[in-house]
Amino acid sequence: MDNFQFYSPTEFIFGRDTESKAGEMVKKYGGSKVLIHYGSGSAVKSGLIAAVRASLSESGIEFTELGGVQPNPRDTLIYKGIQLCRDENVDFILSVGGGSCIDSSKAIALGVPYDGDFWDFYGTGKEVEKALPIGTVLTIAAAGSEGSGASVVTKEEGSLKRDVGSDKLRPRFSILNPELTCSLPAYQTACGATDIMAHVFERYFTNTHEVEITDRLCEAVLLTMIKETPRVIIQPDNYEARANIMWAGTVAHNDIVGVGRSQDWNSHRIEHELSALYDCAHGAGLAVVMPAWMEFVYKHDVMRFAQMAVRVWGCQMNFDNPDETALEGIQCFRGFLRSIGMPINFKELGAKEEDIPVLVEKLGLGEGRTGGFVHLSSQDVATIYRIAAHTE
Amino acid sequence: MDNFQFYSPTEFIFGRDTESKAGEMVKKYGGSKVLIHYGSGSAVKSGLIAAVRASLSESGIEFTELGGVQPNPRDTLIYKGIQLCRDENVDFILSVGGGSCIDSSKAIALGVPYDGDFWDFYGTGKEVEKALPIGTVLTIAAAGSEGSGASVVTKEEGSLKRDVGSDKLRPRFSILNPELTCSLPAYQTACGATDIMAHVFERYFTNTHEVEITDRLCEAVLLTMIKETPRVIIQPDNYEARANIMWAGTVAHNDIVGVGRSQDWNSHRIEHELSALYDCAHGAGLAVVMPAWMEFVYKHDVMRFAQMAVRVWGCQMNFDNPDETALEGIQCFRGFLRSIGMPINFKELGAKEEDIPVLVEKLGLGEGRTGGFVHLSSQDVATIYRIAAHTE
Repeated sequence: MDNFQFYSPTEFIFGRDTESKAGEMVKKYGGSKVLIHYGSGSAVKSGLIAAVRASLSESGIEFTELGGVQPNPRDTLIYKGIQLCRDENVDFILSVGGGSCIDSSKAIALGVPYDGDFWDFYGTGKEVEKALPIGTVLTIAAAGSEGSGASVVTKEEGSLKRDVGSDKLRPRFSILNPELTCSLPAYQTACGATDIMAHVFERYFTNTHEVEITDRLCEAVLLTMIKETPRVIIQPDNYEARANIMWAGTVAHNDIVGVGRSQDWNSHRIEHELSALYDCAHGAGLAVVMPAWMEFVYKHDVMRFAQMAVRVWGCQMNFDNPDETALEGIQCFRGFLRSIGMPINFKELGAKEEDIPVLVEKLGLGEGRTGGFVHLSSQDVATIYRIAAHTE
Repeated sequence: MDNFQFYSPTEFIFGRDTESKAGEMVKKYGGSKVLIHYGSGSAVKSGLIAAVRASLSESGIEFTELGGVQPNPRDTLIYKGIQLCRDENVDFILSVGGGSCIDSSKAIALGVPYDGDFWDFYGTGKEVEKALPIGTVLTIAAAGSEGSGASVVTKEEGSLKRDVGSDKLRPRFSILNPELTCSLPAYQTACGATDIMAHVFERYFTNTHEVEITDRLCEAVLLTMIKETPRVIIQPDNYEARANIMWAGTVAHNDIVGVGRSQDWNSHRIEHELSALYDCAHGAGLAVVMPAWMEFVYKHDVMRFAQMAVRVWGCQMNFDNPDETALEGIQCFRGFLRSIGMPINFKELGAKEEDIPVLVEKLGLGEGRTGGFVHLSSQDVATIYRIAAHTE
């Protein structure tokens, strides 16, 4: 096991009707003038924004608002948010939405006290020294951004998608009411579930050995997703299944399932170019990329893939031929994704094989290689895209 | 799933040589005058206390010291600690030891700013409003106190063992170096492992249904303990196994495996009377009590015990007769405890059947019942003790 630091100070308020605690929580964490940042009109139409406003007012907290966050959140709205916060002396950002909304909020939070361009922090490793405190009211179980210090945003010019991570960006509190996710259409629900599982797999495929506790915690989240996801596809209103998925989504990404080991994140990197170019859902892109990545790399550690097959997918270990078990596990994953309505190849996603050179170019590896489970060259990435293109 | 709050703000610093960061961490969390609180001479002899002193000095932090914490930590030393902190204007407590030491530190931490007797908070539900900040350097994987807000101490007069819980008592940081646990004798190692597993079981046996994510996380910790504990009994220096156990011990008790559900804690309550009366190790007492408790209550939810048998102990489900599977799981647990050298009956523990009325009397249920998975009367508790006395 590698040495590690684990720090997850976010206070989670989980369950029915918990959005009514937004005001109380903002007050507890010292906010007096809040930016309510949200996405589509659905949070307004559903009455959620009204409920949040009422809760803030009840606690005597002033607020201003900025809606319009899109999936794959854009820098243009972020600049607007930073200016608004400065103009209105906002001291706390309350993000009401899914991962895109929270990631946009984090970008605004680090941009407000920073003299330069907020984009300086994205994809550069530049350390975040200061950020406005943020809280969240989560409406989609997917990104795990409600419990993480990570943020991914898109630069409109050139369709660049880049990320930043810092403990300074961890929400002070996150309000998780599974009821708010019941109205989510099946496709978005499945995209979210895929993202959650991908967050676990990016940590599961490691070159660090003897990290049984983290392996088992990873498998716990995956087994939960395998049980609960098909239930909500069939019964969107199933509170219990929604609740399990929602909490699994947080556990999958606050790094409790990733400590003490090297991690991968290449599937995320490879996917980001797809959602940046085609503006597809991140989860859908992952469904196409991740099994292809697995097929490309599994020979690097057959026993690890066999472990996934046996422990996660319930395959019988083929002791004569572990490769077969490893491949069976990957096929189970793909079959599961198909069963919940995810695309599993380029065509189903709306991506084009002829764009592969462009996708690889944008990833920007050049002659270098990515880090991770297997260090990938541009050529390797092209092969993975091709596997994804040709999957049937 | 029940509504819940989850808040685990402790910063964990995990791995080899991490005790050298004690000074840096105390400074980060605002301490300037520290009480180093520790237990036996072994922390001194091993050079650990010297290393901690050096680290504090390097960071320019003053300190005073109080050793002598015993297993089942006593109120007498706590009163001494409170007085010392007041006399020396201590503003931070650094606990160097196992669960007893940390629990003693928590009692001192809440006692210092409180005008009355610190004992007022124990077993009463009285809310902790203020406490000195504490940090820990953990030397035993067992109690989980390094990541929890709980503290259990013993009043010497009358051998009363009582507990308190509050977010105010959560350590600001905990330094976990598995190397420090390698010198622990096999018996104490096994006692610690039993305590860790008991912390999970107290949460696993719940009346809340449909909490798959928490169930699976519980099982993850248990499966890890079942793999790693026998390894360290045979190879005390196995760093990887020690590391897995140490982190499992923290995960088992910061409540990540307990959220969203009712919990039990009756085995702990029933055990506390044994360790208070006989001054035996808490883990050893649990090894005797917990399987007996399981046998007494399993009919309340046979399928839950069958789930444990199948998922944790790898039993085959007997679909014709789930009771058999449930009982097989309990027998597997007892067999495991015996295999790691734990006592499994009164005689092996040094307890006496004729004391059962005294033990029940001290638990203080009177005509009432405990809460939990099954609400137990005094008579039920007596029966559980009798099962434990007669186990062979």
